[in-house]
This record gives sequence, C-alpha cells and structure tokens, in this order.
Amino acid sequence: MPQQERAHATRASIIVGAAAVFNVKGFVSASLDLIADEAGVTRGALYFHFRSKDDLANAVIAEQHRISRQYAEQALSAAGSAFEGMIRMCDGLAHQLVSEVVVSAGIRLTTDGSASILSATDPYEDWMRTFENLTSMARDEGDFLETVDPERVAKFIIPAYTGVQLVSDTLHGRADLFERVRDMWELLIPGLVRPDRIDANRRHLELIKR
Amino acid sequence: MPQQERAHATRASIIVGAAAVFNVKGFVSASLDLIADEAGVTRGALYFHFRSKDDLANAVIAEQHRISRQYAEQALSAAGSAFEGMIRMCDGLAHQLVSEVVVSAGIRLTTDGSASILSATDPYEDWMRTFENLTSMARDEGDFLETVDPERVAKFIIPAYTGVQLVSDTLHGRADLFERVRDMWELLIPGLVRPDRIDANRRHLELIKR
Repeated sequence: MPQQERAHATRASIIVGAAAVFNVKGFVSASLDLIADEAGVTRGALYFHFRSKDDLANAVIAEQHRISRQYAEQALSAAGSAFEGMIRMCDGLAHQLVSEVVVSAGIRLTTDGSASILSATDPYEDWMRTFENLTSMARDEGDFLETVDPERVAKFIIPAYTGVQLVSDTLHGRADLFERVRDMWELLIPGLVRPDRIDANRRHLELIKR
Repeated sequence: MPQQERAHATRASIIVGAAAVFNVKGFVSASLDLIADEAGVTRGALYFHFRSKDDLANAVIAEQHRISRQYAEQALSAAGSAFEGMIRMCDGLAHQLVSEVVVSAGIRLTTDGSASILSATDPYEDWMRTFENLTSMARDEGDFLETVDPERVAKFIIPAYTGVQLVSDTLHGRADLFERVRDMWELLIPGLVRPDRIDANRRHLELIKR
C-alpha cells in the first residue's frame, strides 16, 4: 500500500478499535492502552493520529454519523414516500444500533452528558433538518395534516427517538428497541397523518422489525 | 445539634455540593477535592459518608428522585384529572431542571452513559409505573381513548421526555425546554385523547410555562 493509504487504513482501524472499547467500557473507563491493543497498533501510531481520548471519541461520533447518513440515503431512495422514508430511517438506525459497533458507540458517546467536551450537537441538528424537510414533503404529498409544523415535529421526533433508544439501552440492552420505535410511531401517527391516509401509512410500521 | 442530626446535615450538604460540582463539571471531571471544597467539609468528613465518586453520584441520583417524587405528589394532588396530573408533573420536572441543582445534576447523571456504574434504571421504571397508572386512570375518566394501551404509552412518554430534556440541555442549555415539552404533548394528544375531549384537555398545556 502507498504510505497515505496505509495511514488512512491505520486511522480507520484505530476508530473501530476505539468504538469497540468505548462501547463496552464507556468513555470514562476506556484507556488509550486498551484502544491501541484492540486496534492492533502501537501507542506511537495511535498518538500520531489522535492526541487524546476526546479526539478519539469525537472521531468515533463523526464516523458513526457518516455511516448513519449513508444508511439514511439508502433508506430514502428505497422509500416510495417521505413518510415511508422516515420509518425506514428509524428502522435502519435501530438495526445499526444493535449490529454496528461504531454506531452503537457513537450514539452512546453522543448522549453522554459527562463527556461534555464531545461535539454532540452537530448530529442532532443535522437529523432535525432532515426530518423537517421530510415532514414538509409528507405534507406536500398529502400524507401529513396541513396543520403540521415541520420544525416543531422534527424538534420532537429526533429527541424522542434519542430518548427511546437511550432508555431501551439502559433498561434492556436494546432488546426491546424495535418494539419501542414502532410504538413511538403508533402514538405519533394520529397527530401527524391525515385521517384518510392513516391506514395506508400505518402499514409502513411493519417495516420496523429485527 | 445532637451528633446524629449533625451527621445527617453534613451528609445532606455533601450531596448538594456534589450536585453543584457534577452539574458544572460532569461526572468525569468532578473530583472529590472540588466536592469537599464546594460542600465546605474536610476530605475526612467526605470519606466518612461516601467511599467514592460513584457512591456520591448515586446519592445525588437518589436525592434527585426523592425531590422529584415529592413535587410529583404535589402536582397530582393539585390536578383535577389524571391527564392534568401528567401535564403538571412534566411541567414540574421542567421547573426543577432549570432551577434545582440537585435535580439538574441527578438527571444529567441518570442519562450519562459513560457512568454505567450508576443506578440509573430504578427512576425510569418508577416513572413508567406512575405514568402507566395515570394513563389507565385517564382512560377510566373518559379523557383517553378506549384503545390506548397504558403500558405502551408509559414506555414511550418517559423515554420521549428523557430525550426532549437531554437534547434541549445539549443544544440550548434547556432554554427551549418548556416549548419542547408543550410541543411533545401537542403531538401526542391526538393519539391519546378522545376526539370530544381534545379541546378541554389541550387547555391544560397552558400550564407548561416558565
């Protein structure tokens, strides 16, 4: 491998190693030694790429968000409507949370209040913008009520999903995540969807499953 | 003061000092030295009451939950219906979050993923039981739809509120908390409340204000 590619591959494997350690140990108990061992690199290589545990945690969050955005784009292109896109995105993130260590660790670090040094605000604002746009589209497509305020909807759904996955993680190690995400949408549909479109749109909730 | 009362008062002031430090510094950066200084006690007195930072954080969470339960009981006794009780409880916790340091710190520690040593599960389960009962009552009182499932409702509302306050804290230092809590209920009412009871119940949302 040329040197630049090798450096890039090393950096990527450090991020995956860091995610694995943060995911099990949490931010507080994770150490750079453990991360170097997990990634199979020397301390020197680790310090060449990252100055501190904060830097590493921020890199895991950024990589998680990149991965999740990529899945989200796939979810949207597979969807026949804006509302179906929202459901596919929520289902997709649930799958990533239970199966991808970088996503699991990135989301845990994002909601981690004690690590206030971390750049946790950008992902929230990014998802809120996406959901605001999708809510506008769903209204234009005639699925959502005319009275729905896209900004307020987005500013509720993103925090609500954040809490749903956090509490499912805290109480049940995410074992009930898909059920809780489906219930979230069951409860939200009457406040969002036009009465004559409820049956057609409720069918999309069947997409949310392990 | 008799010795036992004095010990009790010292313990209480350590908890308040710890809350003040956790609230500003977060769990990771808080130190026992800072906490002893903030509480105005010696390290010896601090170690007499608490063995570790984990112990202190758990004591702050327990004290926060005790305070919040007390407010919740007041909210319920002031309410004319189960639904009004839910709204008053959510408004009350928002007030505590912006004005009581023990509550602010306790909730931040509860949602703190990296401090996985902390006993964060009991409060969630306690609030879920309370909201499950209130949902049953609101259904029996004719405000909520017959089809509403109290357990599923509680298992969504408590996590949703958790996320709403967490994201409001992360993005805006809780400046938009009351607005976000009101929006949460605006969006939930159509999925919970009987159509003929919506206007009467929506009026309770005016209680949610700073």
